[in-house]
Amino acid sequence: MNQLPPISDHDLRRATVCQLLHWLASGRIQPQTLTDAYQDAIERFNPQLNAYVGLSSALLQEQAAAAQHRRRDGVIGRLDGIPVALKDNFDIAGWPTHAGLPGRRTPVQEDAHAVARLRASGAVLLGKTNMDEGALGATTNNPHYGATHNPHRHGYTAGGSSGGAAAAVAAGLAAVAVGSDSLGSIRIPASYCGIYALKPTHGEISARGLVPAARRLDVVGLLGRSANDLTVLLQVLAGYDADDARSRRRRVAFAPPDWEPGNLRCGLLPDLAAIGVDADVIDVFEEALARLPRELGERRHVDFADWDFARTRRAGLFLMEAEMLSTYAGDLADKQHPVSDRFRQMLSYASKKSAADYAEADRVLDAATLKMRRLFAQVDVLVLPTTPQGAFPLDGPVPDSQADLTSFASLAGCPAVSIPMGTLPNGLPIGLQFVGARGSDLRLLELAAVCSATLDADPTYPVAAA
Amino acid sequence: MNQLPPISDHDLRRATVCQLLHWLASGRIQPQTLTDAYQDAIERFNPQLNAYVGLSSALLQEQAAAAQHRRRDGVIGRLDGIPVALKDNFDIAGWPTHAGLPGRRTPVQEDAHAVARLRASGAVLLGKTNMDEGALGATTNNPHYGATHNPHRHGYTAGGSSGGAAAAVAAGLAAVAVGSDSLGSIRIPASYCGIYALKPTHGEISARGLVPAARRLDVVGLLGRSANDLTVLLQVLAGYDADDARSRRRRVAFAPPDWEPGNLRCGLLPDLAAIGVDADVIDVFEEALARLPRELGERRHVDFADWDFARTRRAGLFLMEAEMLSTYAGDLADKQHPVSDRFRQMLSYASKKSAADYAEADRVLDAATLKMRRLFAQVDVLVLPTTPQGAFPLDGPVPDSQADLTSFASLAGCPAVSIPMGTLPNGLPIGLQFVGARGSDLRLLELAAVCSATLDADPTYPVAAA
Repeated sequence: MNQLPPISDHDLRRATVCQLLHWLASGRIQPQTLTDAYQDAIERFNPQLNAYVGLSSALLQEQAAAAQHRRRDGVIGRLDGIPVALKDNFDIAGWPTHAGLPGRRTPVQEDAHAVARLRASGAVLLGKTNMDEGALGATTNNPHYGATHNPHRHGYTAGGSSGGAAAAVAAGLAAVAVGSDSLGSIRIPASYCGIYALKPTHGEISARGLVPAARRLDVVGLLGRSANDLTVLLQVLAGYDADDARSRRRRVAFAPPDWEPGNLRCGLLPDLAAIGVDADVIDVFEEALARLPRELGERRHVDFADWDFARTRRAGLFLMEAEMLSTYAGDLADKQHPVSDRFRQMLSYASKKSAADYAEADRVLDAATLKMRRLFAQVDVLVLPTTPQGAFPLDGPVPDSQADLTSFASLAGCPAVSIPMGTLPNGLPIGLQFVGARGSDLRLLELAAVCSATLDADPTYPVAAA
Repeated sequence: MNQLPPISDHDLRRATVCQLLHWLASGRIQPQTLTDAYQDAIERFNPQLNAYVGLSSALLQEQAAAAQHRRRDGVIGRLDGIPVALKDNFDIAGWPTHAGLPGRRTPVQEDAHAVARLRASGAVLLGKTNMDEGALGATTNNPHYGATHNPHRHGYTAGGSSGGAAAAVAAGLAAVAVGSDSLGSIRIPASYCGIYALKPTHGEISARGLVPAARRLDVVGLLGRSANDLTVLLQVLAGYDADDARSRRRRVAFAPPDWEPGNLRCGLLPDLAAIGVDADVIDVFEEALARLPRELGERRHVDFADWDFARTRRAGLFLMEAEMLSTYAGDLADKQHPVSDRFRQMLSYASKKSAADYAEADRVLDAATLKMRRLFAQVDVLVLPTTPQGAFPLDGPVPDSQADLTSFASLAGCPAVSIPMGTLPNGLPIGLQFVGARGSDLRLLELAAVCSATLDADPTYPVAAA
């Protein structure tokens, strides 16, 4: 073993979790080495990327030492030694949870459920990542903590609201990351940054200790450099939590990935241009589909003529804003650390709305649930681009439609996976999305893994690898 | 068989569904005889009781004839020939669905899901029963359709909002009835009228075709003259409906009624007087408990010090009102058939509330869910009176607290059963309530049957039996 050449820091930072676990198990690398490689990369590249907004070198080294001891003693968790990043809306005991807001300086007492599970699995928590203010946006251009840059092009958005987490994974500053997704907050940055994302079925991973956006939409979402890594992470995090009112016991175990190759019934939207998808994105999408004749089986157009994607997104956004009026009541009143004008205006819009407006918007959730139930009686999976456009300049206009292709799965509580599908003419990556029926998380990940192997669309990361 | 004496109309109207099914199966009675007995009783007693507000003699005879044919041909449904009443907020194809409102004269096209299941089971639909205006109340003193009287005392409320359905069952004008319960609308009239009620786990019976009050609280509820009858009715009605967004697939089959006698952990509230229960009701409750030493097993006081029953009820009521602003938008605007001032005022209260108020009230649902989850980790069943008071005069003041003991189970989505527990000093009946964890419906019904056998508290019905 010792005769083998050492693994370069660059390789450690490009490797998948599955590869890292293999190297750790076989003794090729030590938890300390791995932690050091990531810590070193963060120190070198985070200043220009601004993916992390909360770091603690001391705590990181403490965790590495503990992982090192466990490795020696042979009592190894499922993710032992794996460096994980966390979006800054998850509670870590002893850290403040900013959720992208300027106040909130008091350290919290208790780990979020997902954090406690990560710790129990032996994962090494690297730090907390940047996000949109109050998770209300999809650019990670935060007025208090600065903009996170897209690892593929400085000055471009990483997407959001889990943009810091996605940029960290894409740039090799974390092996995997845990974020949140209420209307697309994990899939959108995955699409822009060229990585893999899972928005699980609503209620599968406990959201206790995650600052709520809209509890009926919020899920703990996963980011990684391969579909298989997300499967491992899901198995660690999923499960019933009696202390989270939205957590659900599974009716049955996750549906196993038992689709027959070639027998998959794959649903496609009849007209992407009509719902505002960029022509360039459509081209990459068509090309990806053409390369997956076997993987995506029988294709049929599904009927979305009755569906208004923008209206769905607006209803979800309003439900978030209305709930945030109480979640962030203290922050809105905090004169010492004022929230941005944009944030205040968005919530002020909701504050003028009535209870009847809320009840009305809430009905869109039922409509989305029924729409998806009927759809997934006809097809096994819906395949579409993750976002209507790729990353755009941080100093340019922000398109309204960023979450149009992701929000309906959120309102319906359905799982969705995003994988890189290719490169736009401007050289930036763009994501392919698979949406399935509630509980089909593992099936979607399996399909994603199979398709990824064919597409081989993992982009390289010029900035942080420089 | 023919040598046996005929069964009197009085006995037909007092019999349980299980008894009626036996008589029908053995040929002792014919569907036509049974229908005629109920139709005759309705004609004689409904004018003074005002339980039914929608009747059709022709349709009734048509159903009886069809049941007669099926009986002859031997193709028998689970409830074949059983006379069932329906609250007037369920759609019956060809009838208008008034929901207690003055307009709504147009016949609907399609049966509600529960109605379709009843028809498929061979049940004979007797007619539609009176209710509070828009289900917003618990007296069934309807400004457009008149008051339903309590069968035990004319001039007293039957409770509500399913008061007509409860009065019909209590007075022997229906064998069983199907109503709705959002905060207690089926359990309250069962308590006042001395009959049996089941509010099932939320989502177990499809609410499609039921006029919504608050969809996250609404359940299809059952009324009968025995706990066993409710079990039969539940088996006919329960099941997943893909077209109802709130319908849930069961995680597992209903938990079977497998509590060990004597091993039951029974939770009691420490101080009923402190939460506003009448002294007379407490006396009857204590006496009932004393008579059930074996049935109710080990008893322990559970902690509700952190719980505000009235606040829970008010939060639920507000969610109903807010949702009704859109459900009844057409009715509120209908100048030809104006809604009552009371109804308009209640909805007007909600119309002044904000989206943030709604989001805030919505959090009480999560709190109730967690409260009940923790409670049912400690005890198997919570036992308490169904209502803080018995029936009161229709022309007197209406207590605010009617739903205080029923609404928390609604907000938590838990099943609850009410059975008669005895008689108040004024001679009126009062109910005993069992609340259990989601999915424990059959267990609660089994416990209710066992306790009922000991209590033998079924009251007699002086008015309609006269």
